[in-house]
Amino acid sequence: QLLSELIAFFQPKVLAGRRVLITAGPTSEKIDPVRVITNRSSGKMGYAIAQAAREAGAQVVLVSGPTALDAPYGVNRVNVESAAQMQAAVMAEARQADIFIAVAAVADWHVANASDSKLKKKAGGQPPELQFSANPDILADVAQMTPGPFCVGFAAETENLHENAEAKRQRKGVSLLVGNLAQQAMNADTTELILFDTQGARALPALPKLDAARRLIQEIASQAPLTTADATPRMT
Amino acid sequence: QLLSELIAFFQPKVLAGRRVLITAGPTSEKIDPVRVITNRSSGKMGYAIAQAAREAGAQVVLVSGPTALDAPYGVNRVNVESAAQMQAAVMAEARQADIFIAVAAVADWHVANASDSKLKKKAGGQPPELQFSANPDILADVAQMTPGPFCVGFAAETENLHENAEAKRQRKGVSLLVGNLAQQAMNADTTELILFDTQGARALPALPKLDAARRLIQEIASQAPLTTADATPRMT
Repeated sequence: QLLSELIAFFQPKVLAGRRVLITAGPTSEKIDPVRVITNRSSGKMGYAIAQAAREAGAQVVLVSGPTALDAPYGVNRVNVESAAQMQAAVMAEARQADIFIAVAAVADWHVANASDSKLKKKAGGQPPELQFSANPDILADVAQMTPGPFCVGFAAETENLHENAEAKRQRKGVSLLVGNLAQQAMNADTTELILFDTQGARALPALPKLDAARRLIQEIASQAPLTTADATPRMT
Repeated sequence: QLLSELIAFFQPKVLAGRRVLITAGPTSEKIDPVRVITNRSSGKMGYAIAQAAREAGAQVVLVSGPTALDAPYGVNRVNVESAAQMQAAVMAEARQADIFIAVAAVADWHVANASDSKLKKKAGGQPPELQFSANPDILADVAQMTPGPFCVGFAAETENLHENAEAKRQRKGVSLLVGNLAQQAMNADTTELILFDTQGARALPALPKLDAARRLIQEIASQAPLTTADATPRMT
C-alpha cells in the first residue's frame, strides 16, 4: 500500500494542468423498472486510466456507468446509467477537456418501448416484444467537435481484433484507438493493450491494469497536442 | 463492528442444525460475449438473509448471481450467472435442504439466439433480432418437490403489491411469500417487508436489511416444520 502510493507519487507529471475526460464501466438500458440490458464491463480499465491520469497531474472527470468501484482519489466522478445520460454528461464536459478517453462499454441500442411498471409474465407465457433504437455514438460525436479534445477510443473485440479495431479508429475519426481482446479483459486484473494510430499497430506488454494504464497515459501525453482546444480556433 | 459481532453472536439459534438454501442477486442472460440482460438487484437482501440464517445456527448454501458482495462469514456460496445455471445449482442442493428461500431476481426469459461472438452493428444500423425463451421457474419447481423443503418466495413489485404478491404465492405454491416495493428495495439498505401466508398479510416495520432479515428468519423458523423432509414421506 505504502509502496503503491510511493509509485503513484513518483509518476512523471506528463499531464500537469491538462483536463482529461474519461468514460468507464457499462451503460445500463432500461427494459422496465427491474430489468435492464447491459454489458459485462467491470469498469476496472477506465478507473485505472482515471487514476493514472490523475497521478500524471491531470484534472480528471470520470463519467461512469454502474460499477462496484470506488472513485480513484482526486477524481471527479459523474454517475450515469444509460447511454443517453452518458452522452449528456460527456457533452457537458467535452468542450473544456484537452483529452477525451472513451473506455466505457456503451450499449449500441436502447429499448424504445421501455415500461415504467414491471412487465408481468403474460398468461400465454409470451416473451416481451422489445423494440430497439440506436444509441448516440458518443466518441464519434466528440471526435467531430472543432475545436475538440484529443480523442482516444477503446475496442474490446472477441475476434479479428486488428481488423475491427483499425476500422473502428477510422470510422470514429479518432487519433488513437486502443484494442484488447474481450475474453482477456473482462473482469480481469491484467490486460494486453494494442495501440492503433496512423503509424500502424503496436502491442504493449501484458501488465496489471494500473500499470498498463500508466503506460497508456505516457503514450497519450506524448501524442496529444499541448493545447488542443486552442490549436484549432473557431473560424467564426 | 464489535457491537455488530456481539449482536450476531447473541441471535437466538432458532435454526440450529437446519439446512437452508438461499438464492440471491440477479441472473445474467447472455446476448453475446459482452452484452447481457439482467435485473437491477444488488443482492443485499438475499445476502442479509443468508447472514441472518447463519447467525441463527443454520448450515447455509447461498446460490448467487453476479454481485459485488462478499459472501457472509460461514456461508457456502455457489456462483452462477444465468437462470439455467441457478436452476441446476439449486436442484443439486434442494433435496438436502430443510428450508428454501428464493430471493434472487431471476430473469423470466433468456435469449434463445445468443451469439458466441460479439454482434457487430450492421451497416444499415439495424438492431439485433433477439428471440426469447422462457426460463425455468425455480421456486415453483422446488415447491413441487415431495418431500421438499419449506419454501419462501420473494416478490418485488412496482405497484399493486398485495394483489400481485398473494397471486404469486398461490401460483408458485409456497407457504410464505415476502413482498416489498421494488422502488424502495433496489440498492437500498433499508426495506419494508410484507408477509403473505394462509393467514393473510402482515407488514414488518421498515428496518435496515440485516435487521429485517433477522426478523424474517425468526418468522420462518416459527413456521417451518422441524423436519420438513421427513414430514411428508414418499408414498411409494
